[in-house]
Amino acid sequence: MTATLSSTTGTLSNTEVLTGDRSSVFHSWSAQGSFSGLPIAGGQGSTVWDFDGKRYLDFSSQLVFTNLGHGHPKVVAAIQEQAATLATIAPAHANETRGHAARLITERAPEGFNKVFFTNGGADANENAIRMARLVTGRDKVISRYRSYHGNTGASIVATGDWRRIPNEYARGHLHVFGPYLYRSEFWATTEEEECARALHYLERVVQLEGPETIAAILLETIPGTAGIMLPPAGYLAGVREIATRYGIVFILDEVMAGFGRAGQWLALDAYDVVPDLITFAKGVNSGYVPVGGVIISDPIAHAFDERVFPGGLTYSGHPLAAASIVAAQTAMAEEGVVENAAAIGAYQLGPGLRALADRYEAIGEVRGVGVFWAVELVTDQESRTPVDDATMGRLKSELVARGLLPFAVANRLHVVPPAVVTAEEAEEGIAIIDAALAATFC
Amino acid sequence: MTATLSSTTGTLSNTEVLTGDRSSVFHSWSAQGSFSGLPIAGGQGSTVWDFDGKRYLDFSSQLVFTNLGHGHPKVVAAIQEQAATLATIAPAHANETRGHAARLITERAPEGFNKVFFTNGGADANENAIRMARLVTGRDKVISRYRSYHGNTGASIVATGDWRRIPNEYARGHLHVFGPYLYRSEFWATTEEEECARALHYLERVVQLEGPETIAAILLETIPGTAGIMLPPAGYLAGVREIATRYGIVFILDEVMAGFGRAGQWLALDAYDVVPDLITFAKGVNSGYVPVGGVIISDPIAHAFDERVFPGGLTYSGHPLAAASIVAAQTAMAEEGVVENAAAIGAYQLGPGLRALADRYEAIGEVRGVGVFWAVELVTDQESRTPVDDATMGRLKSELVARGLLPFAVANRLHVVPPAVVTAEEAEEGIAIIDAALAATFC
Ligand SMILES: Cc1ncc(COP(=O)(O)O)c(C=O)c1O
Ligand SMILES: Cc1ncc(COP(=O)(O)O)c(C=O)c1O
Repeated sequence: MTATLSSTTGTLSNTEVLTGDRSSVFHSWSAQGSFSGLPIAGGQGSTVWDFDGKRYLDFSSQLVFTNLGHGHPKVVAAIQEQAATLATIAPAHANETRGHAARLITERAPEGFNKVFFTNGGADANENAIRMARLVTGRDKVISRYRSYHGNTGASIVATGDWRRIPNEYARGHLHVFGPYLYRSEFWATTEEEECARALHYLERVVQLEGPETIAAILLETIPGTAGIMLPPAGYLAGVREIATRYGIVFILDEVMAGFGRAGQWLALDAYDVVPDLITFAKGVNSGYVPVGGVIISDPIAHAFDERVFPGGLTYSGHPLAAASIVAAQTAMAEEGVVENAAAIGAYQLGPGLRALADRYEAIGEVRGVGVFWAVELVTDQESRTPVDDATMGRLKSELVARGLLPFAVANRLHVVPPAVVTAEEAEEGIAIIDAALAATFC
Repeated sequence: MTATLSSTTGTLSNTEVLTGDRSSVFHSWSAQGSFSGLPIAGGQGSTVWDFDGKRYLDFSSQLVFTNLGHGHPKVVAAIQEQAATLATIAPAHANETRGHAARLITERAPEGFNKVFFTNGGADANENAIRMARLVTGRDKVISRYRSYHGNTGASIVATGDWRRIPNEYARGHLHVFGPYLYRSEFWATTEEEECARALHYLERVVQLEGPETIAAILLETIPGTAGIMLPPAGYLAGVREIATRYGIVFILDEVMAGFGRAGQWLALDAYDVVPDLITFAKGVNSGYVPVGGVIISDPIAHAFDERVFPGGLTYSGHPLAAASIVAAQTAMAEEGVVENAAAIGAYQLGPGLRALADRYEAIGEVRGVGVFWAVELVTDQESRTPVDDATMGRLKSELVARGLLPFAVANRLHVVPPAVVTAEEAEEGIAIIDAALAATFC
């Protein structure tokens, strides 16, 4: 109830900013008493700085979304221009920037995807994809996998396959299956082929026994992100596609985190021989400069709503400011070869660099990834693969931050997820910092 | 899959823009084949214009959200500056603009509301309010009213009390009650007092028979908006508050549409003697220039999560660009007396003007509202109160658009909802256009 009108461009300190944020802002996924975020004053490319002038290499891409890095001049300019022209209109009116953004996105999708439904983020993208699947099939159940994250709203949080689902389980019609994850196989498999075949067999058995005529959708992250960056084995996604087709189920691929450069492809699915029915996106599409997400819709599903009313919508669907940031971000990514850069950084710096660390540190159980999308599993020993505890992860994070690297850590894993614009030098600098922090933590 | 790279500032025509939008954008709440939105090229204050240069008085505020009108220079400048400084960060970091926005919002809430959880819009604001209510009570069910709208995501759409809920009913634990609406009373009431007392009695009976220990929340729009702008009778909200308190239920007021100037108050609840436990907002808080919404949290609920993890979150919670637009919009509204203007326009132009039309047109069954938040019920005759049909509403809309007024029509109602910055002259011009359009439709 008391407002301190502080300038946003004054000479604030970290402490002041943190105090101001803590006193009035309720933070996600945390106990409020222990919130202690890093106050970020600005950023450029792969670097951010705090109010005390300390610089950090952003190896988190914030929440794995600033694929173009911070402060991209063309995206900033596009936002500024659109704000001056027309910041906002209702979804029911027509807007040329929105149409343009939709065309640039469908261009990146497989043949036969020609419409985009815009939302505000990833969660409501999945909500609307699930809605479409249920409406076109007339069925109810949604299958997703354990070890997944799909968002925080009603259906998306229940589709999620981690601890966050459990206190939020108020939607019906969701079930979860295990997916392929050889390092911690749920199928007693010893090879990728075996893991893949068994995961597909198990999925199909669940479909059969749930009753195919009750299943609207199979919803999978192309590459599960927050849950551990588990690249699908060759043939897995194509196998799921076959099962979906065989039983008349809508196949939704969630590209919210994996899409738009993260995996060294425009869409992560480009690396696999698979065409889903719906694709959800957010994050990398505009690097999160303006909140936006959406569903890329294949023609048969789009046409199912040519005559029939689609019963879904939101005030800011197709927001012009968001659309302008998409147009600029997509154009910049194409012009600057950002996706190719991400692929090369993965192939030449991050992959080799992290694997070299794995050879040297007993605590690294597995390194896996592609592009700028890597996970390092930390374990007590190679044999048991027991995840290291939270205290150890806390120490590792502190050692990284102290050395000027902003990390993204989940459970017992360090996710190495810099912007897709990261340079070879920055990637190597980041690996060196990780090396030093591992040494300080584990040696 | 084919992209036409058209400039966003070129010399486009309405037809080109509409074609571009239709071909690639999937639209909300509509059959795609019949989508035909107005292409909007720009706007200033209460006026928008299309690509053919035709100007419209915006009596819709788009989707009832541009309370500050279009192109407010200070909000535009704030967005431009923030985009240049730091467009986006992760919620887990601290940001001074975000803290500032939260303080300006809590200042407008009752005593004892000191924290804000930011979301991307109204739907996810309600999702997170419901989540908080369920977690603090340990209960499941949510009561909302028929004739309401709360958003399109999992729980919010099922909390909604109109046709849109029905194809989307996949969440459990929601039930609906009738609220006070004397013109179409569900309680055989003949006075506001009777309607109020009976609605409260009925609500309490439902609570008792559902089992109070199963009910987490009562969720109401302070003034139901899309459902018909039904002002609660004196004592109704205070009566709901008493019932909620008596049975240990969390009382959530949805101020997404009614809040931040729309009802001629900072929050619509200011006009009623009521303090809820949670308040949700979006739209008017920043006039939708950047997608944002949130939950204003009373101290007991906020403190319930001091030690306990709040299991909710989203990538763009507390987005700096959104926060900057909130700070600028809130400041401009205060400096320019926008809320007072809305109240005065309601008292001196819209209220008297619409009531004068009701005296002259047999088709107007009732006029009700406050501030810049008015509904005109159109009926076949005063006696039966039968809603006019869709074809008639379609004609009325065309007559309004032809005369240069952008209307907001729902079912058999014209909602008269200009920006809160509308001038007395514009309000009178709008009333004159409505008069002419009614004459053309009904005489
Ligand atoms: C794969 C995936 N899907 C959906 C979401 C939800 O997106 P949002 O937080 O924008 O709602 C996320 C967020 O991290 C994600 O990683
Ligand atoms: C009262 C109310 N609550 C919630 C919402 C949902 O907001 P959004 O469309 O931003 O999700 C709306 C939208 O019109 C609304 O009017």
